[in-house]
Amino acid sequence: MIVVGIDPGLATVGFGVIETYENSIIPLSYGCIRTSGDKRTPQRLLEIYTEINELLEKYAPDNIAVEKLFFTRNVTSAMGVSEARGVIFLAAQQRHIPLFEYTPAQVKQAITGSGRADKRQMQEMIRNLLKLDDIPKPDDAADGLSIALCHINWQK
Amino acid sequence: MIVVGIDPGLATVGFGVIETYENSIIPLSYGCIRTSGDKRTPQRLLEIYTEINELLEKYAPDNIAVEKLFFTRNVTSAMGVSEARGVIFLAAQQRHIPLFEYTPAQVKQAITGSGRADKRQMQEMIRNLLKLDDIPKPDDAADGLSIALCHINWQK
Repeated sequence: MIVVGIDPGLATVGFGVIETYENSIIPLSYGCIRTSGDKRTPQRLLEIYTEINELLEKYAPDNIAVEKLFFTRNVTSAMGVSEARGVIFLAAQQRHIPLFEYTPAQVKQAITGSGRADKRQMQEMIRNLLKLDDIPKPDDAADGLSIALCHINWQK
Repeated sequence: MIVVGIDPGLATVGFGVIETYENSIIPLSYGCIRTSGDKRTPQRLLEIYTEINELLEKYAPDNIAVEKLFFTRNVTSAMGVSEARGVIFLAAQQRHIPLFEYTPAQVKQAITGSGRADKRQMQEMIRNLLKLDDIPKPDDAADGLSIALCHINWQK
């Protein structure tokens, strides 16, 4: 099974692509899509949509897992994240790829066994689970991987 | 000039299409796109995106005007509205149609001269400005028309 994990945002979308094969978990790709704050929102959303489509075209994932925003004090930032989620959800639906959502606490719980793990503990666990030499960079890419790993764990 | 005004939402997207010709303002169409809460968000967003594209295809507007959410106490509802905004913005950008945003107060100010007008005053002014026999129904369609009218007023 191939899973794309996505940490959505208007400025940065982190992603991680993971394949499960027998008992192993193989990271196929990770990174992030960045859009410039100098550009207008419709242009930024088009860039996110285009790059997500390229990712889905290239890896043809079975499932997509997206981080769920369930509470925030910063409404303006939540609106930008939600606009980005809108075009990501659309890209998934247009390709009929089932999409799943997980809260940050569910992701932490799945990776470390604790819903309160800190960023450093999370990154170390991701490095370990994926047998990487170094912690995946940037942080948003590690977040994308952690969401994909969380989905694999919940599907077991 | 043809303007499409849009009041975004996940459950209901109100729209109004207006043409200005010499000194007259002609309503070409108004109504709303509804999506069922029984369906999952990606499916609802695809339906909104598809119907907005049909509207843009049919009327080939010069500009699109969208209501701006700038403050809300209901974060969950704001997230759904923003996801819908995301796919509407995408549809506009893919067709290279300039998109403008107005706050509810700007819309009220443009239509009635007061940023604090109530719904009934707004609807009566829209009926008057567009020389309609009745107040446009449903309310979301009237909101779409008011946003298009607001844009025409600000462009003068």
